[in-house]
Amino acid sequence: MDNRALFKLSYGVFILSSKSGESFNACITNTCMQIANDPVRIAISVLNSNLTCDYIKDSGVFSVSVLDKTCIFDTIKHFGMQSGRNVNKFEGVKMPLDLNGVPYMQWSTCAVISAKVTESIDLGTHTMFIAEVTDMKVLSDEEPLTYADYHKDVKPKPQKIDEKKKIVGWRCKICGYVYEGEKLPEDFICPLCGHSADDFEPIYE
Amino acid sequence: MDNRALFKLSYGVFILSSKSGESFNACITNTCMQIANDPVRIAISVLNSNLTCDYIKDSGVFSVSVLDKTCIFDTIKHFGMQSGRNVNKFEGVKMPLDLNGVPYMQWSTCAVISAKVTESIDLGTHTMFIAEVTDMKVLSDEEPLTYADYHKDVKPKPQKIDEKKKIVGWRCKICGYVYEGEKLPEDFICPLCGHSADDFEPIYE
Repeated sequence: MDNRALFKLSYGVFILSSKSGESFNACITNTCMQIANDPVRIAISVLNSNLTCDYIKDSGVFSVSVLDKTCIFDTIKHFGMQSGRNVNKFEGVKMPLDLNGVPYMQWSTCAVISAKVTESIDLGTHTMFIAEVTDMKVLSDEEPLTYADYHKDVKPKPQKIDEKKKIVGWRCKICGYVYEGEKLPEDFICPLCGHSADDFEPIYE
Repeated sequence: MDNRALFKLSYGVFILSSKSGESFNACITNTCMQIANDPVRIAISVLNSNLTCDYIKDSGVFSVSVLDKTCIFDTIKHFGMQSGRNVNKFEGVKMPLDLNGVPYMQWSTCAVISAKVTESIDLGTHTMFIAEVTDMKVLSDEEPLTYADYHKDVKPKPQKIDEKKKIVGWRCKICGYVYEGEKLPEDFICPLCGHSADDFEPIYE
């Protein structure tokens, strides 16, 4: 099995927001697709360890802000590379609420889809939510950002490795997971957050 | 609700193959995403009226051939714009079989993912299949074709409309559905096959 085949599936890049009581949270996701008409339904898959997953389970509502090609790395970093358990991602961030009372993006976003969960499927590492679309808006004519665009144009290039120093491990820049060993396998997938070897930085002796 | 928001979701373009007894069938699909790790699972959504949907329900196995940017329109037309109920799409077409005995593409394809269904969810218009990946191969280094690329680069441009003749209806080029009326709404979605207004041709008086 060559896991690199999975990277050939095309995805967009989305900010997935939800609420729990008076609290909001959001994360970055790539998995959102339309799965049926009449009524229109979408499916998303979210890591069970994400706070946003708990919020969706709690409130049953979420919004998907479809990021466009004007998106900069700081936006991805803010929503995708820190946890709502440690920081309030909405502090000082102005975001309007959709009809379900869930915040959505106003910048770098070409469309927003609001939805109500009709079915949740626990898949162990992730939960898949099937949801009925309750509202949709087109916000701009900018082209949607694909996950391939993100890797090519938005994400900072990995730092050069200092070949004079001995590497003893690799740290996932997304969640902090540490892999012990000098060489990180190219097809390594972080067992904590599911990010790939590209998101690891070396730990020197 | 602005349905155009749905077109902002990014997708790939895939040939979805399955079998039933000794018969094979395949169709074009855009919806395939990884939904979990450990074991790796994917989800696809298929129109219930598609023969491939029946075959997947019958055999519980399918393969997803990820089309790449070398793909030409004839390939899409062959697998996506005629029904296996009327024609054997595999007659005279050489395709190898995966470990589940399901054919997959060898040309215009950068990767193939083979899977076994673990759960089927009937959504009325479509069935969503959740499936465990049983094998994956990378076939080439070509970039995957996105659905946006397909519209921009692969699909023939719509024919010029003859403004001297009176239009009395519009025919879906994919499934033959007829919309009666002079003007087809821009956001019209074919109720039979789910394709958009772009795929309709005028019927003149």
